[in-house]
Amino acid sequence: MQHEAVFHTSEAPYGFALSVKEWKVRLRTGKDGIARVNVIYGDRYNSPGSEAVLPMERVAGTRYFDYYEAVLPAPAKRVRYQFLLEGTSGQTLWYGETGPMEERDDRAFFQCPYISESMVHRLPGWLSDAVAYQVFPDRFWNGDKSNDPEGTLDWDSGRRPEPDSCWGGDLEGILNRLPYLEELGVNLLYLTPVFRSPSNHKYDTEDYYSIDPAFGDEELMKRLVEEAHARGIRVMLDAVFNHTGDRFFAFRDVLNQGAASAYKDWYHADECPVVQEPAPNYETFGTGIPSMPKLNVDHPDVQRYLLDVTEYWMNRLNLDGWRLDVANEVPPAFWRRFRSAVRAQNPDALIIGEIMHQAGPWLRGDQFDGVMNYPLRDALLEFFARQSISPTVFLSRIEELRMAMPEAGFAGSWNLLGSHDTERFLTSCTKGGRGWTAGEYAEERMKLAVLFQLTYPGTPLIYYGDEAGMTGGTDPDCRKPMVWRAEQRNAGMEAHYKQLLSLRRRFRPLGALGAFQPWLADDARHLLGYVREWGEERILVLIHNYAGSGTYRVELPLHLQHRTVRDLLTGGSWLAGEVLELPFQPFGAYLLTV
Amino acid sequence: MQHEAVFHTSEAPYGFALSVKEWKVRLRTGKDGIARVNVIYGDRYNSPGSEAVLPMERVAGTRYFDYYEAVLPAPAKRVRYQFLLEGTSGQTLWYGETGPMEERDDRAFFQCPYISESMVHRLPGWLSDAVAYQVFPDRFWNGDKSNDPEGTLDWDSGRRPEPDSCWGGDLEGILNRLPYLEELGVNLLYLTPVFRSPSNHKYDTEDYYSIDPAFGDEELMKRLVEEAHARGIRVMLDAVFNHTGDRFFAFRDVLNQGAASAYKDWYHADECPVVQEPAPNYETFGTGIPSMPKLNVDHPDVQRYLLDVTEYWMNRLNLDGWRLDVANEVPPAFWRRFRSAVRAQNPDALIIGEIMHQAGPWLRGDQFDGVMNYPLRDALLEFFARQSISPTVFLSRIEELRMAMPEAGFAGSWNLLGSHDTERFLTSCTKGGRGWTAGEYAEERMKLAVLFQLTYPGTPLIYYGDEAGMTGGTDPDCRKPMVWRAEQRNAGMEAHYKQLLSLRRRFRPLGALGAFQPWLADDARHLLGYVREWGEERILVLIHNYAGSGTYRVELPLHLQHRTVRDLLTGGSWLAGEVLELPFQPFGAYLLTV
Repeated sequence: MQHEAVFHTSEAPYGFALSVKEWKVRLRTGKDGIARVNVIYGDRYNSPGSEAVLPMERVAGTRYFDYYEAVLPAPAKRVRYQFLLEGTSGQTLWYGETGPMEERDDRAFFQCPYISESMVHRLPGWLSDAVAYQVFPDRFWNGDKSNDPEGTLDWDSGRRPEPDSCWGGDLEGILNRLPYLEELGVNLLYLTPVFRSPSNHKYDTEDYYSIDPAFGDEELMKRLVEEAHARGIRVMLDAVFNHTGDRFFAFRDVLNQGAASAYKDWYHADECPVVQEPAPNYETFGTGIPSMPKLNVDHPDVQRYLLDVTEYWMNRLNLDGWRLDVANEVPPAFWRRFRSAVRAQNPDALIIGEIMHQAGPWLRGDQFDGVMNYPLRDALLEFFARQSISPTVFLSRIEELRMAMPEAGFAGSWNLLGSHDTERFLTSCTKGGRGWTAGEYAEERMKLAVLFQLTYPGTPLIYYGDEAGMTGGTDPDCRKPMVWRAEQRNAGMEAHYKQLLSLRRRFRPLGALGAFQPWLADDARHLLGYVREWGEERILVLIHNYAGSGTYRVELPLHLQHRTVRDLLTGGSWLAGEVLELPFQPFGAYLLTV
Repeated sequence: MQHEAVFHTSEAPYGFALSVKEWKVRLRTGKDGIARVNVIYGDRYNSPGSEAVLPMERVAGTRYFDYYEAVLPAPAKRVRYQFLLEGTSGQTLWYGETGPMEERDDRAFFQCPYISESMVHRLPGWLSDAVAYQVFPDRFWNGDKSNDPEGTLDWDSGRRPEPDSCWGGDLEGILNRLPYLEELGVNLLYLTPVFRSPSNHKYDTEDYYSIDPAFGDEELMKRLVEEAHARGIRVMLDAVFNHTGDRFFAFRDVLNQGAASAYKDWYHADECPVVQEPAPNYETFGTGIPSMPKLNVDHPDVQRYLLDVTEYWMNRLNLDGWRLDVANEVPPAFWRRFRSAVRAQNPDALIIGEIMHQAGPWLRGDQFDGVMNYPLRDALLEFFARQSISPTVFLSRIEELRMAMPEAGFAGSWNLLGSHDTERFLTSCTKGGRGWTAGEYAEERMKLAVLFQLTYPGTPLIYYGDEAGMTGGTDPDCRKPMVWRAEQRNAGMEAHYKQLLSLRRRFRPLGALGAFQPWLADDARHLLGYVREWGEERILVLIHNYAGSGTYRVELPLHLQHRTVRDLLTGGSWLAGEVLELPFQPFGAYLLTV
């Protein structure tokens, strides 16, 4: 046993409350020589008879580490614990808050001091079967030509998107297409910004209190939410609170009045006068983008303003949540207030942060419910699109990511293949490949990635048009107008999405909250398998990530042995022994159940 | 090199902001085979030319781990980084947010996304030379006999404290004794609770808005703070917000009205009627203490009430801070609001949490400035009082604790030998010992512990009477009335405190914020040495934790070699070579400088 590999802290992602009376602990260990891991726990005030031992379950393994978990009952909402590891050659190791120990040390108990209700991360009740769909409004559908800005392109012009192109998409267009979304099988609509702004993307807000006239107005937005709700589709908007546009009233005032402006401290401008040319002398989003001055969200008036905006729209529109732009550059102190305000208005609202790196600290239940899971996308790109990593490495990568998040924050996150900020996944597939002709099996690889996305825990986020086989390079090319005409759409891809979305709805284990257990990672045969579980119900996902075909024997988990095993994708069924022999097509997959 | 031993996360205590443009990183490694550790860092937006390499400094070592630190410049307030470890046999290891890596991986940068001002932990400006003194008001001095409750004992009755004894100590008594505190050399007075309550300890608050009449009144409290301030002594009160007393108006109402009470949700009472006998059917402080019902601090009205109380007293009294009772059982969300409210009234207020275990999560700058460092006390007890651990083990223990806290939270914490909740340290010394007659060298060992306490970073907290050689077992025995008559006081102990307090005031390196570096831990000769540093100024502390005497050669750090070395305790001086030969008395010590 490696003493130095063992790790736990009594906070998320290593310790977190499932309820005020359940404390879940996760312990990291090295890979070698561990026979058993136990957790010794009891009441913090050492009540007689309260101490007990619980064996921990190995729940994940990565290249360097294994992870064990257990749920500690905490009837008094308080629990203390230490770990006892038993090695394969009989040696033992204790582990407490001071680190590895040769023997039990009662001063070294990890402490869960008291679980207040506010420390329990509650996800919205509706999350279990949510599937999100991201719309970039200017590019989804032009439902009202009367509000088209000058220079609006014809939907079918075939022009490549430029940074300032406009296709005239609007809320009326989205409203018209709600039946499409319903039929596709998604039930959560995320719109990139809709508030008044001069750009097509509207991340440079001019007025947080009005809907951009090229998109519609407040009445229409309200109708959109209502009609979406009527179809069982929830609606989330984009909160762009890291920066404003340079036409925003407060920034105009700073530009005009300099040091005399009442809004000077709303921004980070150290010099006066504040100028935009030749380069901004104030902080901006990114590096030196004059049209996006960075807000000083530490300022109490700015916080009040942004919370008022949030409450205004929650109130008027009956919103189901917010996606938070550049969430990692806005102070956590604000997001905590934001969460309280949002949840006070709608206890079932979902809050998703845009964070592209590991986001553990934001996912402790007091800021976000989840993040846009870009690190998972990176792993999917390498495994499915570029074919550059093996099943073993891929599994290690995704398990690392899962173990870096507490349970709720992981389940609450959005799993995406791409967004308005990335190359489209299908385009990545056409480039990547294991030395085949570029583009060979691109569609199959995309489909396999989609199958993974729609059978993995958390909420799938579908970027508009991916389901129709749209392609596109990085921004702005990934923002082409949505293809609606049948001959432009990839019917096979759409059928694939629909089939998997329908299975996800029907089978609870496949949803956001179903458990995930690795089953097999076979590099020689390019097979990856995992189990999804909800209560007694289990579905096995088996992925063949390779261009070849062949018939392979796979060892089944105990509960499937000697039973009739059925594939949810094809309806095929087999009477299994301890192993099952299955034929694999290039980039084929099975969803097995009994 | 052990890949699995390497650890970092981009949050405290492993990563924290020193200012909006400086991000300090701490990396943990195993003990073996590391030649050099570097951090590669740059602008998060990959600005050309921004990437640089910084060698990291080894700052601490424990039994299993070494710790390295570096300060990353972040001119744009954003920085990304990964680590490169070089082994003694030429091998290298990269380490990023996905763990150990064979090669650099730009997707695995640790990210410090943006340092907002609110993320910088600012300690009060006056902390550098603070020394705190804890008074339990009923036991410090009876300055006003007219407010003595019935049954008040004579100060010199010699009675052992019982749970409900009363000695009549009061604010007038403390006021009278301010000259004593000033002369002793302390400058921060912490009073255990003073608000109206039926007990002698007053942790069962009846009325947060009035001073207990046995102690005085608001006018007197105000005068006490004013006169303390006039003598350069700051004043902190005890915030007992985890629970109230059972005479508190809201709890009375719940008892009387049950489910109909407007205050029912202020507590955790699941059944009605709410009863105290035979056992409370509501949550309490500790386990089943009927007189201390636990508040539901998640409730917005409770939060508002407690914040109002806080603001009321901050305002009226010009307070310098709060010590927070049972701080780890009150929701962090409340403490964050509390900190904002307190700092809004007094930006230089100090906030100290009572947490007896490792407190890293509370010390990220958004809750407390420090904690009462009980785990350090445990180590001091074992090393000095019980003599049960060697210098090497002691050093490993205290370095573990130091590395478990971010820099500011460590410097802001209170280092105590004991409190109203523990056996007095001198009493522990009379029990412990390395097989000598119990009590042998008890005073010498206490003095050595005091020398450590007063030369260690952070704020020393002196429990009233320790400086006079008071003894006492655990609560209530540790709460004897203060000894004032010369014949009851240990003059040698007092002189020892005064000398060290005076040195601490004179020499900045000895203060709260001076750096700490281990120098030597010599188990055979029972020597422990460390360096305190402030700018160019350095003081070496050398401790001989043993009953024997002898003359030992110690190797000097470079900056002391071949210079005249002076002992601040005795004034003695020596011309040093590379080593210095020093005579050691039983439990003797040196404070060396040039």
